Amino acid sequence: MSQLEDLIASIPPLDAAAMKEAQTRQDTLTKPQGSLGRLEHLSVQVAGITGVPRPRLKHKVILTMAGDHGVVAEGVSAYPQEVTAQMVYNFLRGGAAINVLARHVGARVVVVDMGVAVDLTPHPNLIVKKIGYGTENIAQGPAMTREQAIQSILAGAAVVEAELAKGLDILGTGDMGIGNTTPSAAIAAAITAHSPGEIVGRGTGVDNAALFRKISVVQQALRVNRPDPLDGIDILSKVGGFEIGGLVGAILAAAAHRRPVVVDGFISTAAALIAVTLAPMVRSYLIIGHRSQERGHRLMLDWLGIKPVLDLDLRLGEGTGAVLAMSIVDAACKILDEMATFSEAGVTERDT
Amino acid sequence: MSQLEDLIASIPPLDAAAMKEAQTRQDTLTKPQGSLGRLEHLSVQVAGITGVPRPRLKHKVILTMAGDHGVVAEGVSAYPQEVTAQMVYNFLRGGAAINVLARHVGARVVVVDMGVAVDLTPHPNLIVKKIGYGTENIAQGPAMTREQAIQSILAGAAVVEAELAKGLDILGTGDMGIGNTTPSAAIAAAITAHSPGEIVGRGTGVDNAALFRKISVVQQALRVNRPDPLDGIDILSKVGGFEIGGLVGAILAAAAHRRPVVVDGFISTAAALIAVTLAPMVRSYLIIGHRSQERGHRLMLDWLGIKPVLDLDLRLGEGTGAVLAMSIVDAACKILDEMATFSEAGVTERDT
Repeated sequence: MSQLEDLIASIPPLDAAAMKEAQTRQDTLTKPQGSLGRLEHLSVQVAGITGVPRPRLKHKVILTMAGDHGVVAEGVSAYPQEVTAQMVYNFLRGGAAINVLARHVGARVVVVDMGVAVDLTPHPNLIVKKIGYGTENIAQGPAMTREQAIQSILAGAAVVEAELAKGLDILGTGDMGIGNTTPSAAIAAAITAHSPGEIVGRGTGVDNAALFRKISVVQQALRVNRPDPLDGIDILSKVGGFEIGGLVGAILAAAAHRRPVVVDGFISTAAALIAVTLAPMVRSYLIIGHRSQERGHRLMLDWLGIKPVLDLDLRLGEGTGAVLAMSIVDAACKILDEMATFSEAGVTERDT
Repeated sequence: MSQLEDLIASIPPLDAAAMKEAQTRQDTLTKPQGSLGRLEHLSVQVAGITGVPRPRLKHKVILTMAGDHGVVAEGVSAYPQEVTAQMVYNFLRGGAAINVLARHVGARVVVVDMGVAVDLTPHPNLIVKKIGYGTENIAQGPAMTREQAIQSILAGAAVVEAELAKGLDILGTGDMGIGNTTPSAAIAAAITAHSPGEIVGRGTGVDNAALFRKISVVQQALRVNRPDPLDGIDILSKVGGFEIGGLVGAILAAAAHRRPVVVDGFISTAAALIAVTLAPMVRSYLIIGHRSQERGHRLMLDWLGIKPVLDLDLRLGEGTGAVLAMSIVDAACKILDEMATFSEAGVTERDT
């Protein structure tokens, strides 16, 4: 088998015994059964993912992967391409939204250059896995070769494997890449079979004229490239991006190592769609951090069949929604582990 | 003026200059304008509340007020009345859900006996402001006298004033009281003019027969007592509760001292409705922590015209939804204060 096939084959099913034990404990804690709603469900899911009936999520990692996109030549973004590199430097200096929120929840930010258009100044906290200097323009042809798509996935998986050695109990995904809502919309349209008109949104905030241009660019990208909706590698190579491929690999590797994955917004969810297309088992490892304000996100979530944790009208990316949701998932696991049971607390159970 | 009138009159309007300064800063931070959605709005609201353009919320207090309810005689709860006192002991030992979540977000839990049916064993962390040994049965007559209603509000305000001296930058509300979804539903029906059938829910989890009984108990309470929907004290005394009155006072006092108030679920929102009826200005100080799974909560939120921060299907009370939301509000203020601006970070602004 190839390295990617090995990775996919190594993803185990959730641990049903750990889930049952977690649910049984939830039902003995000092609260009406079910009264903590989604916190209870999240804790049971994490028990199944980790195989630990009372899991703890000490080491939180938010992975922010950056890449550039040839499709910016079509005028699909409100920002110039140089902003991708500038924002990577902002991440490394700790001044971006993701840094502030990661500090708030006690997560470490791992920044990866998957394919920024320029060579970045080396920095001790910058991981360089550059597959190329930005993708090709998807409105004209494929974003990358099939080999590059596989390389980007394996590179993302390697980043997670290296971070596991430093401590990683839960992974959040994030992205940076001027223009990357366009390939993400193309991926979503290819996989969910919704039309670009239903999926494409304003990204960083383009006006109406640019929105219509963006819809027609996605239509053209799908017409020119004809990605196969059942072949995740084909979709990634034809209408994807290097940071999106990196996130696909990170998601697969986290699942293979029984770590929960909190998916951020529109771009991260596009990566999750590809990961699930490649390895349907991965779906049960996913927690959707938030519902993005970006138009097509809810259609992607409908396809996945997963309800987001938060709904705060965010549309920034970077992992900002994921990192806030990681703190909720952590809280859910603490509820399961730390609360007193009815018998420990000497509280009378309900009349039945 | 009476002490309560003084308190109400001392609530200032939000500081428009601080809000404008906060909004201006949000618009220069390294993200597309508006892309952090509700986090941006919350930070601007807190700037207006506190009068500080870059507010910090270091000291977080969650106030969990307990009281008993004579209406339990009508069989409206799935749990026996003794559970109120048992849960107060659980709070004091740190084993309840609110303790776990408060530790998670770095908040301190302040537990107050506003009217538990028994004398509780003294504890250094238990504040006793007992107005009575449980309310009277609202299905038969008023819950308390008008004097007791005012006393409960002033007692709640006094608790907040004492906590301000120890450090209180943001207040979360919480409750414990077997049977207290019934008076809360009566309050909501009286104020919002929705019928008990639309408002009453299953509380801790009663079955269908008990749900119908609960609806008819609320109808009877309103018929017997005829609370005046425009007179908050009349509503509180006739169909309220001692812990609900305490929360009304806590909300008023927090607003009077320019502190944001994060309201928990069904019972806390009933208190917020009374607080707004007494002092409409208080509305702008409120942040609704979450949308409760308890049936009528969304109608109460519609009346207030405030969107909740979280929607996690919680229905426990204690302040569990509020305390999780306090962490989001804290994050929102850190975004405003800590993020780099475009010029600080050397990031190119959008093409315009």
